[in-house]
Amino acid sequence: MRLAAKTSDQADIAGRSFPEAVAALRQLTDEDLGAVNAAILDTMRSPAQLIPDIAGHLVQAGGKRIRPMLTLASARAFGYRGDDHIKLAAAVELIHGATLLHDDVVDASALRRGEDTANVIWGNKESVLVGDFIFARAFELMVAARDLKVLQILSSASGVIAEGEVLQLSTQKNLAATVDMYLAVIEAKTAALFAAATQAGAVIAGCSEADEAAMRRFGLNLGIAYQLIDDALDYSGVEAALGKRVGDDFREGKMTLPVVYAIARADGEERAFWRRTIAEGRQQPDDLAAARVILDRNGALADTIACARRYADLALEALDEVDAPGAAYAEALAELASASARRAY
Amino acid sequence: MRLAAKTSDQADIAGRSFPEAVAALRQLTDEDLGAVNAAILDTMRSPAQLIPDIAGHLVQAGGKRIRPMLTLASARAFGYRGDDHIKLAAAVELIHGATLLHDDVVDASALRRGEDTANVIWGNKESVLVGDFIFARAFELMVAARDLKVLQILSSASGVIAEGEVLQLSTQKNLAATVDMYLAVIEAKTAALFAAATQAGAVIAGCSEADEAAMRRFGLNLGIAYQLIDDALDYSGVEAALGKRVGDDFREGKMTLPVVYAIARADGEERAFWRRTIAEGRQQPDDLAAARVILDRNGALADTIACARRYADLALEALDEVDAPGAAYAEALAELASASARRAY
Repeated sequence: MRLAAKTSDQADIAGRSFPEAVAALRQLTDEDLGAVNAAILDTMRSPAQLIPDIAGHLVQAGGKRIRPMLTLASARAFGYRGDDHIKLAAAVELIHGATLLHDDVVDASALRRGEDTANVIWGNKESVLVGDFIFARAFELMVAARDLKVLQILSSASGVIAEGEVLQLSTQKNLAATVDMYLAVIEAKTAALFAAATQAGAVIAGCSEADEAAMRRFGLNLGIAYQLIDDALDYSGVEAALGKRVGDDFREGKMTLPVVYAIARADGEERAFWRRTIAEGRQQPDDLAAARVILDRNGALADTIACARRYADLALEALDEVDAPGAAYAEALAELASASARRAY
Repeated sequence: MRLAAKTSDQADIAGRSFPEAVAALRQLTDEDLGAVNAAILDTMRSPAQLIPDIAGHLVQAGGKRIRPMLTLASARAFGYRGDDHIKLAAAVELIHGATLLHDDVVDASALRRGEDTANVIWGNKESVLVGDFIFARAFELMVAARDLKVLQILSSASGVIAEGEVLQLSTQKNLAATVDMYLAVIEAKTAALFAAATQAGAVIAGCSEADEAAMRRFGLNLGIAYQLIDDALDYSGVEAALGKRVGDDFREGKMTLPVVYAIARADGEERAFWRRTIAEGRQQPDDLAAARVILDRNGALADTIACARRYADLALEALDEVDAPGAAYAEALAELASASARRAY
């Protein structure tokens, strides 16, 4: 289909903002999303009270619910009429939630979605074990959808995500990390689940193989764009709007693209700055502000956003190849991709 | 079938020792077990070097491989001729391995199977993330066996295990924990995987529903007996033979059956001892030795072992109902159950 949505370059002038695009997608999937939330709460029932407590905290804090909406909208775009997409969307969100719980333990994060993180409220042990439980329940939900192809897609994504997290850990504080290494990490830790979410939705609806491949590419490139902006926002974002602390990546010595770019462009003094703050982890109170100044000055942030825009365009191109009957859903997905490189929260 | 194996009471006099029973089962499943090890190593390949490193450590340290052998022997007992039982057995061992990695982080354990634990060598973050990877890979392996019923059995077991770990955490240091609470914890954290291992093996071989139920009951009761002895050995075992530190449960304030029994039988002075050491966690160097003396004196250890024997007998009764053509495999499983209440490592 030819989509009316503009590519992200044009959209800069005319398109919806990212929050507007998310709101439009949410309105379109509202009833399904309510069923997803109910399925998540239902599957978290347990005599071990800690489980509904932590799961409730995760659900209430909410987040944008982008991943499950991708599954719902992808299924509906291909005219799906059953209810297995609810289970799959819930599974996708649970995989994401379990990853967040473990991430926050690994990163020792304190704030997520504007709330104290579970590891701060309940403890690290509790977050590890409840994360495992949520992950297992996600698998039970997908199994209940009884589609082996979808199971293969989602179980494979889960492995790739964990692999990406391990890769990220091994590039941390490593000033020699390259753009390719960075892209491999975010493709695995973030984009693989976006890709699986859109692909699984299309597959459960019985799409063609060509459409399946295109929907996967759509999700993958959207996920990369999304994470690129996330990594830019960790330096340029406004904490209150973001719902998480700014500068966490810097403090943890994560080699995100802004820093990879900045190090490639650094003069001697700047190299010493990055060595001390990232490689050696010796940071002083105003180092984050100094890092922001450098990233702004040498164009590292602007180039990260430009990179995100290229991936958003690849996502739109993939969607453009798709032959989907549910035009409203496809339009909403296109607008999300189009706006993704412009988000500020 | 009527099994020649003795019930565990008789076996005390005539049966094989536990190491002998394990060795017999290993000999019988030797070729399959080699394929399981290869499948595990194969599935742990990754550009993130930490993954094969930690997985290799887990595989080399070895362990007794009881769970995968249960799946292999159960499938063979029902005359299975395919090779999907290899994938399922590998998945079962990987679920167990992922659980161990996370357990050791949660319990801050330092020694497992006679080796330093992964969290000590590589760190907690690394163990959490690689555990997630292993868990995801376990699911991929099961999905590759393409049997929805087996997927349901194993994914459900994974959730129950995590739930059991959370329950255990919430009963820790709680002197009011009851026998029923303890049994609920070990049924979930240990016996559920034994049950799924034997059930899945039988199901993949196409057994009848009655045999499936009996094989599940066999695994469940065997798992309970196994964990009861594990918990007795944490007080009575010999560290070198056990390959893990003795007294870990005591130090962590775990409410295992020996302690639950001992508290029910405690006089005032003993109650004060348990309150200080378990509830308040204030322990002195010779408290473990003192605990052992109390557990011996009031019969708490002997009664824990007697309890294990009753569950081993229930396992044997379940196996007795089974109509399995592979008599050698069924015999080996019976001998394992018979010896399980007598193991000292």
